[in-house]
Amino acid sequence: MKDKAVFSVIGIKHGHVYQMCDGLIKSGAVIKYVYDDDVKSVESFSLKFPTCKYVENADSIFSDNETDLIVCADIPNRRCDIGVISMRSGKDFFCAKAAMTTTEQLERIKTTCKETGRKFFIYYSEMVANKSALYAEKLIKCGKIGKVVNVIILAPHKLGENRPEWFFSREQSGGIITDIGSHQFYQFLRYTGNESAKITYSITANYSRIGEDFDDIGECCVRGDNGVTGYIRTDWLSPDSLNVFGDGRVFIVGTEGYIELRKYTDVGVSEEPDNVIMVNKNGVFKKSVFFCQDIDFFDNLLYDLKYRTEKAMNFTQSFAAMELALKAQNNANENRSADE
Amino acid sequence: MKDKAVFSVIGIKHGHVYQMCDGLIKSGAVIKYVYDDDVKSVESFSLKFPTCKYVENADSIFSDNETDLIVCADIPNRRCDIGVISMRSGKDFFCAKAAMTTTEQLERIKTTCKETGRKFFIYYSEMVANKSALYAEKLIKCGKIGKVVNVIILAPHKLGENRPEWFFSREQSGGIITDIGSHQFYQFLRYTGNESAKITYSITANYSRIGEDFDDIGECCVRGDNGVTGYIRTDWLSPDSLNVFGDGRVFIVGTEGYIELRKYTDVGVSEEPDNVIMVNKNGVFKKSVFFCQDIDFFDNLLYDLKYRTEKAMNFTQSFAAMELALKAQNNANENRSADE
Repeated sequence: MKDKAVFSVIGIKHGHVYQMCDGLIKSGAVIKYVYDDDVKSVESFSLKFPTCKYVENADSIFSDNETDLIVCADIPNRRCDIGVISMRSGKDFFCAKAAMTTTEQLERIKTTCKETGRKFFIYYSEMVANKSALYAEKLIKCGKIGKVVNVIILAPHKLGENRPEWFFSREQSGGIITDIGSHQFYQFLRYTGNESAKITYSITANYSRIGEDFDDIGECCVRGDNGVTGYIRTDWLSPDSLNVFGDGRVFIVGTEGYIELRKYTDVGVSEEPDNVIMVNKNGVFKKSVFFCQDIDFFDNLLYDLKYRTEKAMNFTQSFAAMELALKAQNNANENRSADE
Repeated sequence: MKDKAVFSVIGIKHGHVYQMCDGLIKSGAVIKYVYDDDVKSVESFSLKFPTCKYVENADSIFSDNETDLIVCADIPNRRCDIGVISMRSGKDFFCAKAAMTTTEQLERIKTTCKETGRKFFIYYSEMVANKSALYAEKLIKCGKIGKVVNVIILAPHKLGENRPEWFFSREQSGGIITDIGSHQFYQFLRYTGNESAKITYSITANYSRIGEDFDDIGECCVRGDNGVTGYIRTDWLSPDSLNVFGDGRVFIVGTEGYIELRKYTDVGVSEEPDNVIMVNKNGVFKKSVFFCQDIDFFDNLLYDLKYRTEKAMNFTQSFAAMELALKAQNNANENRSADE
């Protein structure tokens, strides 16, 4: 067995691919090949990862015996097919979210995992690579706020400029809830300790890009199998003046206290990230956990590759998050509030 | 015509009555009589309002020719009957929220208003007497965040101790959404410029008072006639350690920016109330508006009494808020998440 895990990359359409590769390399993996149908974007990628070799087609990666793991951030509706071929080629798969854009694709991935024994990781960065989210989960597990009863997640994002064409296609991107929402459902399931939940309400609307195949706001209500409820708002309406991509917040209510996360900035207060506020019987507690919380996701992922364990993420929960996002999106497609 | 408006009080079951009387007196009205079936509570009331005379039955107030306005903070399900008699006796009426506990009561009040020409004010303090809420409304009207598209209101409350018996009866209190939620629906309508809206989802649960006729959490989704959506969470789960009755928040998303209110405290940051945060193309703006926002509700109410205008509140909006709260509560009564 090789000393180090080797990974190759197929599809670099979404910027998360940089975090995914960076995390794996920092945890000791070696990057080998990259393929994308846009050679220009590969040039920028190579500046960041100069040891990574460009290949002219994905097949060279599928057939490479040295590659253990395929990292994929292709256009969302193409990720499933690449994942299936990867797993059938004996590789594990590490996919940007949203990993699928239809429930049919989700079922195909689940079946392929079962049939091949391969692992399909999804990079829900807003949970697995977010220090405040991980810290909150720890506080909950320590019982600091009693039993969790409600979780509200606000996931506003800047739209910015230079979004690619596929971003403005619901079919290719999966839609706002599938895309941004999947992160949030995964958080909901982890904070509430559920492996399954139901969508009780969802709605989307398009205010800023009239006539385009796009929604700039999406909302969902969800109810875990244990009765805990949640609300998620996603949007692409944040002003460019904000110092971060979005003023993401989480509010977790327990029977004995509550937690608020100001994940990326403490708007109006400071630009420090990873702010955790907790109020319980001992009083009010607030700090940035940037310097005191580790992210062990990538270490765990590489451990899972080697020892066939399930430390990085609970796959049932991970697929359940995608299922919730897809169902909420489908429901919302029938329930659009405005497109003026 | 008398120089000053005269008001009398029927029912002092809810603490809001102190703010209501105080506000009227500060704006120049004169308090005359008080009636409550619990003489003990009248004693405390008289300490605060020593010129107010106790009467042994409500009829003495209904028949008092000098009383222009009756203030009522009786048990919620008794407020409607008192309001109807008051208005039929030629008095205007100023009612604590929730002003009604059933849609039948709401219809009765509306009919009585029409038939008598009397005014029925509801004290939605979290809007009409809240400086940050009033300031936000001004910012919206000035177009500072473009067109409003979504409003989220978190209305957590401490349960505390010494709640009266009626508080733990859904029939008498109206339930958590009717009670706390009515404030929030009124805010939703004002921030979004709607006079009418629909409930799209609601749910309640009881985690802390197992077996009691009570819910400690209630959530609602709402959609205004203009398509703007909202989510409201009410709860009685705030820890006693908090320095205020609840860490009330409002998040208003517009097409060109967003506003957050930290209404009663800036949790973890400072104990200053009335914090307004706005992010728009000009950057991030944060301040406490405690010293720079007036509350003109009581002045306007007295003006309305005298000149028969509608400056203090839009009654269509006020009744619509109660209607939404009652409908959301009714729907939630069929949709309870947990009662363990």
